[in-house]
Amino acid sequence: MVRGFSPAAAAAVFRRQNFLIRCLGGYRKEKNYSNNFHHHCVIRMHSAMSGGPSLEADAVSILRSITPTLDPTRHKGQAGKVAVIGGCREYTGAPYFSAISALKLGADVSHVFCTKDAATVIKSYSPELIVHPILEESYSIRNDEKGSISAKVIEEVDKWMERFDCLVIGPGLGRDPFLLDCVSNIMKRARESNVPMVIDGDGLFLVSNSPDLVRGYPLAVLTPNVNEYKRLVQKILNCEVNDEEGSKQLLALAKGIGGVTILRKGKSDFITDGEKVSAVSIYGSPRRCGGQGDILAGSVAVFLSWARQSAYRGELGTNPTILGCIAASAILRKAASLAFDQKKRSTLTSDIIECLGRSLEEICAVIS
Amino acid sequence: MVRGFSPAAAAAVFRRQNFLIRCLGGYRKEKNYSNNFHHHCVIRMHSAMSGGPSLEADAVSILRSITPTLDPTRHKGQAGKVAVIGGCREYTGAPYFSAISALKLGADVSHVFCTKDAATVIKSYSPELIVHPILEESYSIRNDEKGSISAKVIEEVDKWMERFDCLVIGPGLGRDPFLLDCVSNIMKRARESNVPMVIDGDGLFLVSNSPDLVRGYPLAVLTPNVNEYKRLVQKILNCEVNDEEGSKQLLALAKGIGGVTILRKGKSDFITDGEKVSAVSIYGSPRRCGGQGDILAGSVAVFLSWARQSAYRGELGTNPTILGCIAASAILRKAASLAFDQKKRSTLTSDIIECLGRSLEEICAVIS
Repeated sequence: MVRGFSPAAAAAVFRRQNFLIRCLGGYRKEKNYSNNFHHHCVIRMHSAMSGGPSLEADAVSILRSITPTLDPTRHKGQAGKVAVIGGCREYTGAPYFSAISALKLGADVSHVFCTKDAATVIKSYSPELIVHPILEESYSIRNDEKGSISAKVIEEVDKWMERFDCLVIGPGLGRDPFLLDCVSNIMKRARESNVPMVIDGDGLFLVSNSPDLVRGYPLAVLTPNVNEYKRLVQKILNCEVNDEEGSKQLLALAKGIGGVTILRKGKSDFITDGEKVSAVSIYGSPRRCGGQGDILAGSVAVFLSWARQSAYRGELGTNPTILGCIAASAILRKAASLAFDQKKRSTLTSDIIECLGRSLEEICAVIS
Repeated sequence: MVRGFSPAAAAAVFRRQNFLIRCLGGYRKEKNYSNNFHHHCVIRMHSAMSGGPSLEADAVSILRSITPTLDPTRHKGQAGKVAVIGGCREYTGAPYFSAISALKLGADVSHVFCTKDAATVIKSYSPELIVHPILEESYSIRNDEKGSISAKVIEEVDKWMERFDCLVIGPGLGRDPFLLDCVSNIMKRARESNVPMVIDGDGLFLVSNSPDLVRGYPLAVLTPNVNEYKRLVQKILNCEVNDEEGSKQLLALAKGIGGVTILRKGKSDFITDGEKVSAVSIYGSPRRCGGQGDILAGSVAVFLSWARQSAYRGELGTNPTILGCIAASAILRKAASLAFDQKKRSTLTSDIIECLGRSLEEICAVIS
């Protein structure tokens, strides 16, 4: 404990710092450093996607540079507080995978905001998560209740919003129109509070149809898989995916939506904020079991938060959102690789989650 | 079994003995020994918190002195019966962590009193717990039902109260005003029955606003973390936390509330009953995942019960509540350290709970 600087005061200062980071709007203030950083950390031309330059990121160096040291003077919450918005009558695994992955990577607190049906199940998967049964789907409510329920959802989320370092929007969200309306309101509120958002799964369905939800918001990360990417390209660029011009099209998409970061998942992952394209192709597994995207979304939330803390301390020279995406991509790929070594074709998403800790430890050993 | 002394009669005698211990009001009768004990078990000045003396406790000796031998003639319940009051629509992990930790340390029986929503989930975490779905939150009842429900809650708790060696009030309690009213009534009833109470989490929110619930009750232990401590200092002492005068302020807080024991959690844990401040800083981990406070609260309940049994047998020379806190602090810190050795940054609260048994065994080996 620092003399003359109480834990409570430190907590308040830290919260304020976080708020200031949010107010800075992320990397926009740090762009002047980006060439320098790319000189150090992005090391070779990438050939997995043609049509414009993409550079393989030095993901291992990035992971080491943004993962915080573990310091006994810190208190609960300082290593990250994330919330997943997702989980409905049909889907309960996806939000669980995202939220538990965040904890396994070192976040201190992980929340899930989902429907009542989903909450009981998600809670029962693990006592480690804090699960809020606040969302509703059309089938379970009357039309005349919608206004009051929608207001109640925002009221509940508002109690927590300022405490979160990042939201994950979409894992297991479903496509119920009323529920998606409520989630749109949550996204607007997150923007007002400058809370970063990682958008995946049905969150991308929502954003494809309402791109204004993220347009011009530099703290939004979209993590589309092949189908979600196709839909985004069709809706935003009014054309089909063209891998002959892959990097160019990805840059155009990021610019087309306006200033967001996109992590395009595939054999190699490609990441851009509309300025440059970075690639991550180290590690990886040939197993394509459902749920790996949920791990990635939770991981982006953690690493993005850590990168923003490093950026605030002046330790980084590029957009921390990009660095968070590169780190998350690499750690998922390494965990998938370790899990596949053990379980081969039988590898499930839970097996990969169990390898997250070892993956991070092998790259960024904790010195204790 | 003693000849001519049936198990049933022995159980009744033991219950009565326990009742007598409670009626003694704990350590107030034993204060004359405290200097002697501190001479043996509190070994060096502590520098982690300035502003008045605090002494590093010899937690290992204390653990050995109060942990009961395992004796095949004893029967179920004699090693401790605890109950956790907590668990609502939002929180189910916290009361589970507290209740299962008590069992893993050696308590015989562990109950949870929670809302109906929470009960199903907590039961699903483990068949080892006895879970009573008796609490209600405002959202699920009508105003005109509140009187009868409140009476019913007390009636249900009253059936069990005399059997418990300690209550843990607060893990995952939430802040619903009606629910907190019911819990206030439970606390009043526990006081009337001289049942010790460990108060954590939202129980501390309740006590900060209604300090009379514990004022002058020597069998109450408050276990605040950094934020909860801040709120207590503001409400009771009408000032901010001042770590320059850390020990002095902690003593003033304990006196300000009036005769309770406070375990202030942090990098080092500080414990006082208003007379002296003891510190525990052995072992520990830099991981700050949510839920560790719940383990501590359940552990205090067990060790406090054991210390009171030792005190009744005349084996101790100081306030058994203080000894219970020191022992619980040390065992959590050791378990967290063992878990961290294995899992590093990926350590979750469940991993720490799995190390409780080994931690206790390494310090107080069972001789069989």
